[in-house]
Amino acid sequence: MSKILRINTRTREYSFEDMGEYAGLGGRALTSRIIRKEVPATCHALSKENKLVFAPGILTGTRAANSGRISVGAKSPLTGGIKESNSGGIVSQKLAKLGLGAIILEDKPERDAPFMVIRLNKDGVTIEDAPGSMGMKNYEYQTVLDEAYGGKAACAVIGVGGEKCLKASTIQFTDPEGNPARSAGRGGMGAVMGSKRVKALVVDDKGAAGVEYADPDAFKVAAKRWVEILRGHAITGQGLPAYGTAILVNVINEAGALPTKNFREGYWDKAADVSGEKMAEVITQRGGKVKEGCHPGCVIQCSQRYMDKDGKYLTSGFEYETLWAMGPNSLINDLDAIATMDRMCDEYGLDTIEMGNAIAVAMEGGVIPWGDAQAAIKLLDKVGSNDAMGNIIGNGAGFMGEAFGVDRVAVVKNQALPAYDPRAVKGVGVTYATTPMGADHTAGYAVCQNILKCGGDVSGLDKAGNVELSKGLQVATAAVDSAGFCLFVAFAVLDVEESMQIICDMLTARFGQTFTPDDVLGLGASVLKDEHDFNRDAGFTKVDDELPRFFRENLPPHNVKWDIDVDELQAAKF
Amino acid sequence: MSKILRINTRTREYSFEDMGEYAGLGGRALTSRIIRKEVPATCHALSKENKLVFAPGILTGTRAANSGRISVGAKSPLTGGIKESNSGGIVSQKLAKLGLGAIILEDKPERDAPFMVIRLNKDGVTIEDAPGSMGMKNYEYQTVLDEAYGGKAACAVIGVGGEKCLKASTIQFTDPEGNPARSAGRGGMGAVMGSKRVKALVVDDKGAAGVEYADPDAFKVAAKRWVEILRGHAITGQGLPAYGTAILVNVINEAGALPTKNFREGYWDKAADVSGEKMAEVITQRGGKVKEGCHPGCVIQCSQRYMDKDGKYLTSGFEYETLWAMGPNSLINDLDAIATMDRMCDEYGLDTIEMGNAIAVAMEGGVIPWGDAQAAIKLLDKVGSNDAMGNIIGNGAGFMGEAFGVDRVAVVKNQALPAYDPRAVKGVGVTYATTPMGADHTAGYAVCQNILKCGGDVSGLDKAGNVELSKGLQVATAAVDSAGFCLFVAFAVLDVEESMQIICDMLTARFGQTFTPDDVLGLGASVLKDEHDFNRDAGFTKVDDELPRFFRENLPPHNVKWDIDVDELQAAKF
Repeated sequence: MSKILRINTRTREYSFEDMGEYAGLGGRALTSRIIRKEVPATCHALSKENKLVFAPGILTGTRAANSGRISVGAKSPLTGGIKESNSGGIVSQKLAKLGLGAIILEDKPERDAPFMVIRLNKDGVTIEDAPGSMGMKNYEYQTVLDEAYGGKAACAVIGVGGEKCLKASTIQFTDPEGNPARSAGRGGMGAVMGSKRVKALVVDDKGAAGVEYADPDAFKVAAKRWVEILRGHAITGQGLPAYGTAILVNVINEAGALPTKNFREGYWDKAADVSGEKMAEVITQRGGKVKEGCHPGCVIQCSQRYMDKDGKYLTSGFEYETLWAMGPNSLINDLDAIATMDRMCDEYGLDTIEMGNAIAVAMEGGVIPWGDAQAAIKLLDKVGSNDAMGNIIGNGAGFMGEAFGVDRVAVVKNQALPAYDPRAVKGVGVTYATTPMGADHTAGYAVCQNILKCGGDVSGLDKAGNVELSKGLQVATAAVDSAGFCLFVAFAVLDVEESMQIICDMLTARFGQTFTPDDVLGLGASVLKDEHDFNRDAGFTKVDDELPRFFRENLPPHNVKWDIDVDELQAAKF
Repeated sequence: MSKILRINTRTREYSFEDMGEYAGLGGRALTSRIIRKEVPATCHALSKENKLVFAPGILTGTRAANSGRISVGAKSPLTGGIKESNSGGIVSQKLAKLGLGAIILEDKPERDAPFMVIRLNKDGVTIEDAPGSMGMKNYEYQTVLDEAYGGKAACAVIGVGGEKCLKASTIQFTDPEGNPARSAGRGGMGAVMGSKRVKALVVDDKGAAGVEYADPDAFKVAAKRWVEILRGHAITGQGLPAYGTAILVNVINEAGALPTKNFREGYWDKAADVSGEKMAEVITQRGGKVKEGCHPGCVIQCSQRYMDKDGKYLTSGFEYETLWAMGPNSLINDLDAIATMDRMCDEYGLDTIEMGNAIAVAMEGGVIPWGDAQAAIKLLDKVGSNDAMGNIIGNGAGFMGEAFGVDRVAVVKNQALPAYDPRAVKGVGVTYATTPMGADHTAGYAVCQNILKCGGDVSGLDKAGNVELSKGLQVATAAVDSAGFCLFVAFAVLDVEESMQIICDMLTARFGQTFTPDDVLGLGASVLKDEHDFNRDAGFTKVDDELPRFFRENLPPHNVKWDIDVDELQAAKF
């Protein structure tokens, strides 16, 4: 049976508890339930009343392909609502193998207390002052941790962003190559960790018992079929491995849905300069790697190793959304500059989507010129300095807009919009508007049906069918996030009817109780209910589901508007 | 009959309209009704959809003592709710004498369009590019306007704060001495004006017809009695003229309700250094003036002219709340330093309460040391520079807290708390929590009954009776603000039973229709209803009526907590 590790960050006391009322939950289902039950919805997100929860998924630690994601939950300092931020990396599977269902960080030390490191291994927990100096970049700090704790450390670490409690700060997770390049990116989870003066979790699973299976043979059979399904699908088996998510640059641009110049147009004539095809070409020329997984057991391999002009490793986990946010939306068509900013975000521990939008807002406000990549890099670099501008950009797009009096700011619940214009991909617009997370494409990725025509065909230009579509996807996603699966398994699950049963077979074989597709979807729905309930108690109303009013303007080239009334949207919620 | 002047700031077109559905309204009743009717509650406060309304009170322009205040209304960029910000100065009476019921500024020009000046006189309106250069301090810019428009110009002007669209920016009004020292201080009205690229209104009433009276003789009789009532009351006739509002420093400190070190204690042993008595002593020594009115016809004379060490004019309109915010709450006990900051706020066009709180939050966050007056002055001075820190402090206390990850920030609806700890003056705590304005003592000044024992005696340490008390005061205040009266008339009105009838007599004699006390209170209630309705449509819920959770901690010396549940508070709303 899994345990919960509960740590008081003020006293540095901790305890291992039975799962109790949380038994059977994992991933997002667990983080959201704990936050819902234990955190006052109206507390300040950086106060001692907030908690930070790390939870592997229900299937994490098993041999199920692509099940090694981690959920990080808290009240978000960015949105003021509940947050589950999801990441790859090598920590989650190790936690599961150590028998941990969740780690809960509680209370907080004084503001000027030393930062601490929390170490976990099969023998227990050690809490000590963080080695090295604070303010270091994350790649360098990873080596400090490696040296301090013997070899390649599996870490969850905050950078300068989290140390400064900035709202766009991430928690970075060590990737399979030993770099802190995977992010629980959205919603400022790094700030919550920073407010508790926790610099890093360091996890070692050497000698751990690992997870048990009620029926190992049945699990093996189901897991094998699961790999076949993922490898057999065009997107998870071919598209994503070849180009990563960056394949979407040209696709979304051709669909007229690539937000350009702070969401003014849906098509950019320079998009090809920063496309997945271009990226793959550059990576290959420079001796990088076009495919790589974010955690062991990944068969999709959508990540990559991007090299600089000298063939030296620059960054990885370089997603379509990052390319877009720092590229077309800011009129920057310099792939190396965008890769540099991606790396900077990993170094400082900042959300790339939020930073890209903040840069576009700074351009909107005349702080730096449109399309000026070097100015954007300089602006981002302020986060590492004492310049107050760093506190502005590091707090995200909404904050940048407020600092400079800009009224064209693409946020929902103060979280910056991802790379799909909601006017032209209305299903994802519904998701932005209604997910408890704030604008988040991953919470209900209707790009599938609206554009990729995977798992159905619903026009993204018309509102018809998109509220229902988004709601269904939000439920499925909440289940995927609770299992510990990578979201991209959804492409295959949506198209291959057998998939749901195979997932249930794996759950049944792992736990010894029978799971049905209805159980899985019921879990997803219950997650959303917890989350919406929390947000309602935090003071959210349907007004918080409105997209910024400038989305009522026409979006070229399709000349579509956002036309889904906030009352209609309520049907997508629980 | 009064007219409404409606100006499109994008096209610079304008029109004079009949009052129409707004007939009979003035001051806050008129600004709030117009905002309620014409501004979408969910619009961005700095967008073209917001409007900025200037309205003299119903009795403004008459000979009624203390009736020359102006209401400025808009959706607030600071609170996100409706705002009426109230000021003295010489503009309001001139507008009334020109026959204007309100000026409505609509739409907005491009972000980089030149700032404009709107000139009004008996012959009409002129709109032209603003003279001089932008970025000047307000006292100097007042001389630019004086020179450009011949002699002493009566102006409503924004400073650098408004030009930069900062949320704590004021609109400054020319005082009777010709200085831009009176402020529509709260809620960022300067930012709304700045977003519309209006640098100043300049009003000349030479040759204006003035206001008419249905029964001039009856008005004269009532107005005379009104003066007697104000002069006869201990507070309006003696206390305020002698020491201004600064008399409250010692009073509130002795009551254990003077928020000290960012609301940690209710008593400060150094408070006497910045008291009204001390201020009067310094002013007298240096040849200043201890009493002065903020507009012609004021018989209370609570303002003053404060001189520097060389006997040179430094500032006026130097209120208790300013003294407190920049003094005890930041542990600064240097009267000259506080006077300097008061002047700086007038120069840059910033709200002193918001700035004082922002300084305390900066101290809380370790940005500058506690009690360091020179560091505070330097910080405030950033608003006039290109340093991004200026954009942080100029956006107020809440923004400062967010920028530096501080969780102890005394705001309600993102507006900083004034100078009365809500735990020890619970009536004013109810006002902070429930007024549609965000934390605002003037919206229902229960300090009267809780501490001064004027107009009743209700303990401020106990919750009993305070919800009802605040509600009644909020209604009366909304009526006072609609009439154009200075809030301080309330001291006399609360104690002298005859006052309400005298006010009704003045209204009746002015307009020729009979006004009763019920009519006046009914007007107040209708104002609050408009305002709460707007806020509800903007997404406010009872959660927005919560005081920050740290007010549940004990406040020494009385060891009282904030213990009025948010559900109980709802009874104070409409």
